[in-house]
Amino acid sequence: MSFITLTTDFGTKDHFVGAVKGAILSQLPDAKIVDISHEISPFNIAETAYILKNSYKSFPKGTIHIVGVDSELSDDNKHIALEIDNHFFVCPDNGSISMIVSEIQPTKMVEINIHDRIETSFPVLDVFVNVACFIARGGNLTVIGKEIKEIKINTEIKPKINELQNQIIGGVLYVDNFGNLITNISRKMFQEIGKNRKFTVSASKHKFTKIFNKYNEITGEYGTNSTIFDGEKLALFNSADYLELAIFRSNLKSLGGASTLLGLKYRDRVTIDFHSENEPEFSPLQ
Amino acid sequence: MSFITLTTDFGTKDHFVGAVKGAILSQLPDAKIVDISHEISPFNIAETAYILKNSYKSFPKGTIHIVGVDSELSDDNKHIALEIDNHFFVCPDNGSISMIVSEIQPTKMVEINIHDRIETSFPVLDVFVNVACFIARGGNLTVIGKEIKEIKINTEIKPKINELQNQIIGGVLYVDNFGNLITNISRKMFQEIGKNRKFTVSASKHKFTKIFNKYNEITGEYGTNSTIFDGEKLALFNSADYLELAIFRSNLKSLGGASTLLGLKYRDRVTIDFHSENEPEFSPLQ
Amino acid sequence: MSFITLTTDFGTKDHFVGAVKGAILSQLPDAKIVDISHEISPFNIAETAYILKNSYKSFPKGTIHIVGVDSELSDDNKHIALEIDNHFFVCPDNGSISMIVSEIQPTKMVEINIHDRIETSFPVLDVFVNVACFIARGGNLTVIGKEIKEIKINTEIKPKINELQNQIIGGVLYVDNFGNLITNISRKMFQEIGKNRKFTVSASKHKFTKIFNKYNEITGEYGTNSTIFDGEKLALFNSADYLELAIFRSNLKSLGGASTLLGLKYRDRVTIDFHSENEPEFSPLQ
Repeated sequence: MSFITLTTDFGTKDHFVGAVKGAILSQLPDAKIVDISHEISPFNIAETAYILKNSYKSFPKGTIHIVGVDSELSDDNKHIALEIDNHFFVCPDNGSISMIVSEIQPTKMVEINIHDRIETSFPVLDVFVNVACFIARGGNLTVIGKEIKEIKINTEIKPKINELQNQIIGGVLYVDNFGNLITNISRKMFQEIGKNRKFTVSASKHKFTKIFNKYNEITGEYGTNSTIFDGEKLALFNSADYLELAIFRSNLKSLGGASTLLGLKYRDRVTIDFHSENEPEFSPLQ
Repeated sequence: MSFITLTTDFGTKDHFVGAVKGAILSQLPDAKIVDISHEISPFNIAETAYILKNSYKSFPKGTIHIVGVDSELSDDNKHIALEIDNHFFVCPDNGSISMIVSEIQPTKMVEINIHDRIETSFPVLDVFVNVACFIARGGNLTVIGKEIKEIKINTEIKPKINELQNQIIGGVLYVDNFGNLITNISRKMFQEIGKNRKFTVSASKHKFTKIFNKYNEITGEYGTNSTIFDGEKLALFNSADYLELAIFRSNLKSLGGASTLLGLKYRDRVTIDFHSENEPEFSPLQ
Repeated sequence: MSFITLTTDFGTKDHFVGAVKGAILSQLPDAKIVDISHEISPFNIAETAYILKNSYKSFPKGTIHIVGVDSELSDDNKHIALEIDNHFFVCPDNGSISMIVSEIQPTKMVEINIHDRIETSFPVLDVFVNVACFIARGGNLTVIGKEIKEIKINTEIKPKINELQNQIIGGVLYVDNFGNLITNISRKMFQEIGKNRKFTVSASKHKFTKIFNKYNEITGEYGTNSTIFDGEKLALFNSADYLELAIFRSNLKSLGGASTLLGLKYRDRVTIDFHSENEPEFSPLQ
């Protein structure tokens, strides 16, 4: 059985997703097709990278992931297919899988070269489906593409570290369904640079000196059925192990979420300053 | 073959739903996973209860329903698994399945106790998926939890009846995709209390003295291709057998639906007054 | 194995879609159910027709397509089942499949007549699912309906052509996920009427004298990584071979798409004037 996932900015109203699924099932009636997301903001590569990074791994080994975000073919936007971590990706070479590739080395990468036979303005349907089904039937990547040595990396996904190694300068990478702000700062980087020092997370005028591991840790001794914390801001490492600025029990549609309440959005700066032993810690009262 | 459904407030943009499906398929490649809804308003238990009540029954017996709304584990929000009406539910103990349990007695209820082995801020992925797959493989609930006698009931789902038994005091439980307002008053309660008496349904300043069984009954002798009724308000027992206040052929995005046009929203009061034989019936002209 | 698709205006929040899927799986546990769209604008037949036309064909032959848009039964809105192009459709007789039927003759059409046994306000669940499963099991259409000779055609889908055969008067049929405006003018009609003449496409105050085949053809010699064209308007024949007015790399949620930026919406007029050899071509400078 073949597992094929779809990650696109097509939305779910139009015929695009249905047409792609029909085409896959026409070739592989037994395929299991799973939607990862079709709600990527149009042409947003950082969102694509974040969503793929945090979902692909839970699928069975051998799963083929089709990525359809800004996939129109051009000299600057080739189509590629990769094998990495025992998963396959069929996608444009635009940084969509940057967050995976920056951690794990692909075992094979090819630039798809079957386009001389296909002229199309809907490449996911006309090219990616064929490549995915070819891989599903056991086909070798080198038959449908020529091997390449490197692919494009989206630079947004990497925070900067200052020379003194006491500051991480990151940014908002993603705003989730609850309006929470996910940064590009991973728990791993935080630990490696922070070395257990005290710290202050800053975003716009907001400061955090504690990072939780679960949302409801904020309620502390008050017990978790307390509603007095509803709407409080907090910083935590989320389930994807990235630093997230959140509003406790937020509702983007009614009260608002972190994005609206903290006045922050995609690409806004988030920094962490680490404090030396004898340096006075940040205090909101000073 | 195992059938597993998902009902969450995750939305469909983020990686959450994809990650959960991948994890299920990694354990049970043959599982049929069906989305019931991922658009529950964040943390809204009443909506969850209404949607589950009206969908679970159409699935094959033995289906396992995973419910991920406000599911972070705490002392006040345990994780539970139930068998009821030959279906299984894996969910937080927060009232999500109140509407089912208030009608049908569960045959088995356990509080899940595998958390000593799992620390997580994404319990649907890390706990519920494992429990669901365990059940799908034929596992006994008592292996993954300790039996309990009762679970939390959401009090919102039950209307009140006055002492004289001539008034039902209910409220808006759910606003659907068309903007129609679904109340917590069932046809069954209406018939039991009403006993064929005349009645007036009141919601804000709006009154209804007739309850239809189908939307287009409103067009009556004018025939169903009449458009003169478009935009008219009506009360009906909907396909779920709950009293619904609707706008005929409404479009929430253009003309507006019952919610916007009648100025009513989730939790607003809806009452039914039953009239005695010699009491004058409500007339809008008086 | 049976393939069944769903195209509705139910949205994905409510229980409707889940209930329908559960009912299908209860009858046909092996069925592959694929969502084409549940985001059709409420009661919008033109959208339904466009989406079905552009998706059904990619599914395997024998696929059964359930269409649930404005499907409440009435004297003017019968329920029908059709076989066409080796696909089956179960739908209301309201023009939903106009765009398919206007190109390909159905091989069989029946008016469903099992309603004497079913009283319902949710016909997709109670009628269409049963009909679809009956067809999936190899049942003959004439068992569940009586043969009919014609069905309703939505007149909106057909542009007009003037007497001199030098003007196509069409309109906006559909606004897609990117805000692009899709007209009812097909490439085929354009070629048949246009006969290689020069032309001007007009929509509101906007004029186009070139129709592209791919979005990024607009960048021409500047190369496709150029961002100077972001936000430019263009006309193209889209992947469905209909004339589309688009904004290059548009984002409806941030910068806006063709619908907002050009000030055009569903049903607005779009015309093409063809110019004779000696007639001066349209020039925006005149």
